[in-house]
Amino acid sequence: MKNLQSFALCLQNNELSILDQQLLPHEKKWITVENCAHMVEIIKTLKTRGAPLIGVAASLSLALSYFNHPDLTTANQNFDLLSAARPTAVNLTHCLSRVLTCINETKHPELVLQTAIEIFEEDVNLCRAIGQHGANKIDDGDSILTHCNAGSLATVGIGTAIGVITSAFQQGKKIHVYVDETRPLLQGARLTAYELDCLGIPYTLICDNMAASLMAENKIQKIIVGADRIAMNGDFANKIGTYNLAVLAHFHHIPFYTAAPYTTIDKHAKTGNDIIIEQRQAAEVKGISWCNYELTWAPHHAPTYNPAFDVTPNRLVTGIITDRGIFNDFN
Amino acid sequence: MKNLQSFALCLQNNELSILDQQLLPHEKKWITVENCAHMVEIIKTLKTRGAPLIGVAASLSLALSYFNHPDLTTANQNFDLLSAARPTAVNLTHCLSRVLTCINETKHPELVLQTAIEIFEEDVNLCRAIGQHGANKIDDGDSILTHCNAGSLATVGIGTAIGVITSAFQQGKKIHVYVDETRPLLQGARLTAYELDCLGIPYTLICDNMAASLMAENKIQKIIVGADRIAMNGDFANKIGTYNLAVLAHFHHIPFYTAAPYTTIDKHAKTGNDIIIEQRQAAEVKGISWCNYELTWAPHHAPTYNPAFDVTPNRLVTGIITDRGIFNDFN
Repeated sequence: MKNLQSFALCLQNNELSILDQQLLPHEKKWITVENCAHMVEIIKTLKTRGAPLIGVAASLSLALSYFNHPDLTTANQNFDLLSAARPTAVNLTHCLSRVLTCINETKHPELVLQTAIEIFEEDVNLCRAIGQHGANKIDDGDSILTHCNAGSLATVGIGTAIGVITSAFQQGKKIHVYVDETRPLLQGARLTAYELDCLGIPYTLICDNMAASLMAENKIQKIIVGADRIAMNGDFANKIGTYNLAVLAHFHHIPFYTAAPYTTIDKHAKTGNDIIIEQRQAAEVKGISWCNYELTWAPHHAPTYNPAFDVTPNRLVTGIITDRGIFNDFN
Repeated sequence: MKNLQSFALCLQNNELSILDQQLLPHEKKWITVENCAHMVEIIKTLKTRGAPLIGVAASLSLALSYFNHPDLTTANQNFDLLSAARPTAVNLTHCLSRVLTCINETKHPELVLQTAIEIFEEDVNLCRAIGQHGANKIDDGDSILTHCNAGSLATVGIGTAIGVITSAFQQGKKIHVYVDETRPLLQGARLTAYELDCLGIPYTLICDNMAASLMAENKIQKIIVGADRIAMNGDFANKIGTYNLAVLAHFHHIPFYTAAPYTTIDKHAKTGNDIIIEQRQAAEVKGISWCNYELTWAPHHAPTYNPAFDVTPNRLVTGIITDRGIFNDFN
């Protein structure tokens, strides 16, 4: 079958490997995925992350498992296991369902694997389309703020928010990126900074609480972030801290965009109130767990609040950049 | 002479000791101050911090040095050294000038030491007065957000912002405190959480980018922070991230207060534009330096932006709580 290679996922001779994002930026180590239970562990420990990348990785894992052992009961069990690995990412279940439907309907191992490969290729194309639509909104000379990582470490293409930035950069526009470090898991400081380094796009790393100060100094012209789930009214969930930026953008009259595949729109969520937010462990807020470091700088028993995501109401959003165009009127 | 004891400073038998705040919350170690150069190093390495505490500590150091070696030239050199240790804190120079004036005018070692002791005692009283004025603004059942540390680890009394919280708590009001971790130096996570633990005041620790999400859920009724310098029009400089909170408070219609001694008002600063902001090293943003840990989780050469403070315009401030009352009309 076909071999596939993205920045953080590799399929070669029907063996799936995942770049361990927990070790970035200082160490680049690929993990060979042994089975679906291993894939679930890789997702839960955030060794791979980003809604689109998780969707593709889980689909390939489910398909490969069936390809190697074509058993319907096992496939259904694996589907359940993988679907539950990251509850907020709507397209994880969406992608897995496509593979499971093919398993149930065709029972044909090669067609099943082909379906997962199509999901990979579609994501590459989706990112490219998002990038092209979004790049039109970026002006020469813009400084753009982004949060978390919505790039080629979160998809198998050029990314969503960073896909827009990359497309504008490739058009020859002179741009500068401000990267929020994105506490508590530091995806901005560790992953987006690394990715922009690899792409050669100039950037400046800041702590999350410094963005307002830059806006007051007129140093930010656009804000672009990703989205994990978009409600039918245009409210959207994304990494904690996104709503903070949306309020700041509103106050400072700075255009604020989210970029995501059209399939991120969840027909079962009427508004942002229907999006359930995952609460994570206290240890993440009390310190840092990264590579082999486990550091607690707060009092050991400190009570914490640690939502993985927040919800930004549509009225604060200038536009939702998708592969099918830019939407801004959901009413 | 008199012995003095606060939460983070001790004068006993004319020996000055400082609690090493860099080791908090897990280790409580007192440093004996050897001389003024040693005091400067303690301030620069943030082993002691907080504008009022630095003012008192530096004054006692200058006075003790003169008390032990009454030499005018040395005293003037020490004054210059100590004044330059933390440029943004306006009352550092203010306190030191009082001691130097006494040295030059009286040349009397005991009177000089007495002046520094008076500065200590005044700070205790200032905090108490700030606390009493501010506590009137706190309602039973309030959840209060604070940033950085403006408590008994930043003053020699009950603190300014935390002084208000402590006073309200001591009045029997049921309150809850949300503590911003305050990147990059984590004064909230390390110091405010520790201090509230010691005081028995219930709190929840959050990352800086989670405050907006709490406000959207109506979980915050008041915001109180400290101030390092207040301009004549009521604009004020405080720890980076304060302006962020002021914008969020404005958007969510939440009262936003700063609490500081009246002497924090700088007659030489007409507006916030006259306040020069100290830029700190990139290493702080790229990782963490705390206790014996030096961790860099961003790419080693990542460019950063790292202002120590930001400026909040007076129009976003509900009131400035001082020892002389609460001010909110500077126009």
